Amino acid sequence: MCIVCTHTIHRAQHHFGWNRDFEPALVAKSGDTIHFECLDSSGGQLGKDATLHSLANLDFDRINPVSGPVYVEGAAPGDALKVTIRRFVPSGHGWTANIPGFGLLADQFKEPALHVWSYDASSMAPALYGPGGRVPLKPFAGTIGLAPAEPGLHSVVPPRRVGGNMDIRDLSAGVTLYLPVEVEGALFSIGDTHAAQGDGEVCGTAIESQMEVEATLELVKDARLKSPRFTTTEPVTRHLDGAGYEVTTGIGPDLMTGAREALMRMIDLLGAEHGMSATDAYLLCSVCGDLRISEIVDAPNWVVSFYFPRIVFA
Amino acid sequence: MCIVCTHTIHRAQHHFGWNRDFEPALVAKSGDTIHFECLDSSGGQLGKDATLHSLANLDFDRINPVSGPVYVEGAAPGDALKVTIRRFVPSGHGWTANIPGFGLLADQFKEPALHVWSYDASSMAPALYGPGGRVPLKPFAGTIGLAPAEPGLHSVVPPRRVGGNMDIRDLSAGVTLYLPVEVEGALFSIGDTHAAQGDGEVCGTAIESQMEVEATLELVKDARLKSPRFTTTEPVTRHLDGAGYEVTTGIGPDLMTGAREALMRMIDLLGAEHGMSATDAYLLCSVCGDLRISEIVDAPNWVVSFYFPRIVFA
Repeated sequence: MCIVCTHTIHRAQHHFGWNRDFEPALVAKSGDTIHFECLDSSGGQLGKDATLHSLANLDFDRINPVSGPVYVEGAAPGDALKVTIRRFVPSGHGWTANIPGFGLLADQFKEPALHVWSYDASSMAPALYGPGGRVPLKPFAGTIGLAPAEPGLHSVVPPRRVGGNMDIRDLSAGVTLYLPVEVEGALFSIGDTHAAQGDGEVCGTAIESQMEVEATLELVKDARLKSPRFTTTEPVTRHLDGAGYEVTTGIGPDLMTGAREALMRMIDLLGAEHGMSATDAYLLCSVCGDLRISEIVDAPNWVVSFYFPRIVFA
Repeated sequence: MCIVCTHTIHRAQHHFGWNRDFEPALVAKSGDTIHFECLDSSGGQLGKDATLHSLANLDFDRINPVSGPVYVEGAAPGDALKVTIRRFVPSGHGWTANIPGFGLLADQFKEPALHVWSYDASSMAPALYGPGGRVPLKPFAGTIGLAPAEPGLHSVVPPRRVGGNMDIRDLSAGVTLYLPVEVEGALFSIGDTHAAQGDGEVCGTAIESQMEVEATLELVKDARLKSPRFTTTEPVTRHLDGAGYEVTTGIGPDLMTGAREALMRMIDLLGAEHGMSATDAYLLCSVCGDLRISEIVDAPNWVVSFYFPRIVFA
């Protein structure tokens, strides 16, 4: 229960895509703390009993609902909205899927795959992965954003200058996020809550999990921000770095190719060391492994590395 | 002093570039531990008293010497060389430079710049940066590699399948690195020692610092490795993550553009918050800030983030 919230955005108050002409679900003042009842990114289509059949019948028009929008009084283009993420109330269940056509290795993983997760929402202890390992959890919201200036409906899938589906795994409790305002009232929405994800979200999904979120919205006038930025005053990986990492590399003149090669090599390594199928390893890499740019200056070849936390199999 | 080493590669035993026909400095057996006296990446041209004048007169034919090569008996193409990095003996001084034409923002930073560092090689306490802040240190070797199969001399600048100038900041003491062997004897060399660097090495240089390195070389027969990989059994960022991070983003359809934008925005932020010149911030970002790929699946826009550790100004 939120003791400082002054408003609740109920689960039914969600929308699909971004549009500056959406009716606000709430008109708030700068400084208000709001309780958001978010849906998972399937909009409840993939629940505890979901199967490959549910995945095959997914209605993509209902994908990635976000709760809101919140109209913040006084917000105007050129301002920033400061979002203090206070708390997540996780649901205890979630899913990870390979959805054909989506993901960094979509050309190689063409068959649908689904893993349904159950976790302890009180202790948030590492969650058992059926094919092997336990994944440390750290909730965050994959989609946090404002309405873009351009009129009309915009797909929720790509993130933009105003944020949106950024899938930055460190947007967790305690973080302060700044978003550039492009329309009157800012029109803030949030959703796509995840129980865990690595940098990259390589298979295209995280541990997608319905949660409630508490956040404080404040205006920063005339901030002239060019893209989202955030501050975390705490370390970001201590829940998973205790046993170090296995690291593979992709080396060459194209960062995208390097990222794909590093990931492919990690999938091969997890197969060799843990007898895990390629698809199972791909999903596991998405929920806990990180893509990093090790060097981007030794022309003409860059190094992209994939970091897999050893604690998963410790 | 190395108590398990059976060989020393002396400072004079270095070479420039990679060549399968270089005479070995040493013929070693699998399992040997070797003491390498490495040079810094300027080959001693930029010492404690270096100035912009020294930088302007840099002889590029003497850039990035590596110590070796070591011929490992029995090594053959298809094998892997397992390199256990045991210890660094840092020198206590180093340099970071903007070298015109080199670096992620070479088009914007066209003037040479140089910062000379002094640090306590015993305590390895965070090193004072003249323009502001203190940088946590963690020594590693920027260049570790083997001779490529193709005959002739190959530039030391780009890393390759066989490793080389990978500039992976986590190749520090305690790490086990596996490199693909492409020639008889493997022909291992190491150098380009750094006292600190962030993921990306964005300005093109780290805290370049002469050190000694101890490493054990072992053969793994018929490993069929496609590119370097490594294992670290310890966390990699705990020396610098204690106060969290400031994070900027670059969002769009090209990872390179996203990386450049995220970095430019961090340089702007350091200027705004700490009154630091753009050039000073660029060099500082290179020695302690990290480029990460936050998401690479929400087509058509990817998110590249630049993480700057707040402990530098704590």
